[in-house]
Formats: sequence, structure tokens, C-alpha cells
Amino acid sequence: MEGDLAHIGAGLAAIGSGAAAIGVGNVAGNFLSGALRNPSAAAGQTATLFIGIAFAEALGIFAFLVSLLLMFAV
Amino acid sequence: MEGDLAHIGAGLAAIGSGAAAIGVGNVAGNFLSGALRNPSAAAGQTATLFIGIAFAEALGIFAFLVSLLLMFAV
Amino acid sequence: MEGDLAHIGAGLAAIGSGAAAIGVGNVAGNFLSGALRNPSAAAGQTATLFIGIAFAEALGIFAFLVSLLLMFAV
Repeated sequence: MEGDLAHIGAGLAAIGSGAAAIGVGNVAGNFLSGALRNPSAAAGQTATLFIGIAFAEALGIFAFLVSLLLMFAV
Repeated sequence: MEGDLAHIGAGLAAIGSGAAAIGVGNVAGNFLSGALRNPSAAAGQTATLFIGIAFAEALGIFAFLVSLLLMFAV
Repeated sequence: MEGDLAHIGAGLAAIGSGAAAIGVGNVAGNFLSGALRNPSAAAGQTATLFIGIAFAEALGIFAFLVSLLLMFAV
């Protein structure tokens, strides 16, 4: 058995990256659901859509960053 | 017992890639749900659909990238 | 087999960071869902949106902090 234990950690961190996509999907999905019911209000909530995506995406990118650090920096 | 611990990590990272599909499915599913209720508004929300899919898909591709890196680059 | 068990812990902590994004997505998604149904009330709830995002995001950042501490400080 060879290899570095940090590589197991990198794989585990990538699960976090994928899990964050559930949050992103929830934001965009609810926006689409509401925008198709009331299209005239959609333009006014576009900023909120991107704010919600940004905050959820950031956590996924943090997990991806941990993956990269575990593979190449630790 | 032989093998490389990085291969366990690659398999774990693929879980993250699959989890991201839940988010992508949520985006596309809500779009379809709304578009079938109000088909005339669907064309105006196509851009939002692809934006939502792109952000959620990106996190899954990051996890897939971690898998590939663990198998071939580390 | 080489490496530090703390690096497996760092990967596990990054799962927590990604899981927090589900919470953030739930907050922003439900805000969008309601704001598109009743747009005139959305402006009055923006503060609550950011409070909800901040509390959920904080937990994800705590998990990310644990990841960083396990990699570089322990």
C-alpha cells in the first residue's frame, strides 16, 4: 500500500464541492420556478439570484480549494 | 495489500461529481415544471436556465477534475 | 503509506463546508420563491435574507477554517 493519506482527504473535500452544487441548484431552481409563474417580476430579482448563487458557490469553491491544497501544497 | 491510496480519493471525489447532478437536476426540473405551466414565458427564462446549470455543473466538474488529478497527475 | 491523518480530517471538514451551501441555497431559494410571488414585499425582507445567508454561510466558513487549521496549524 502506497500513496499519501492527503490524497484521501483531497477526494473527501471534492464531495463538499459537489454538495455545494445542491445549494446552487436550489437557488436557481426556485428562481426559475417563480420567474415562470410571474415573469414580470423576474428582472427585479436577478440581483438576488446572483447573490444567492455567489454565496453558495463560494463554499463549494472553498472545498475545491481544500482539495487542491491537499494535492499540491501540503 | 497493494495499490495507491490516491485511488480511494479518486473514487470519493466521484461522489462529489454525482452529488452536483442533484443541483443541476433541481435547476432543470424547476424550469420544466414552470415552463409547462406557463409555456409562453419559457423562452424568456432560457438564459437563466443555462446560467443556473452552468454554476451547478461547474462544481461537479471541479470534483471530476479532482478525480482525474488524483489518478493521473499526483 | 505516508502522510498525516490530519489531512484526512481536512478533507472531511471540507464536506461540512459544502453541506453549509445547501443551507445557504435553501435561504436564498425560498426568498426568491416568495419574492417572485409577492414582489412588492421583497424589499422589506432583504435584511432577513442577508441575516439568513450570513448565519448559514458562517457555519460553512467555520468548517473551511477547520480544514485550514488541520492542514497548516496542527
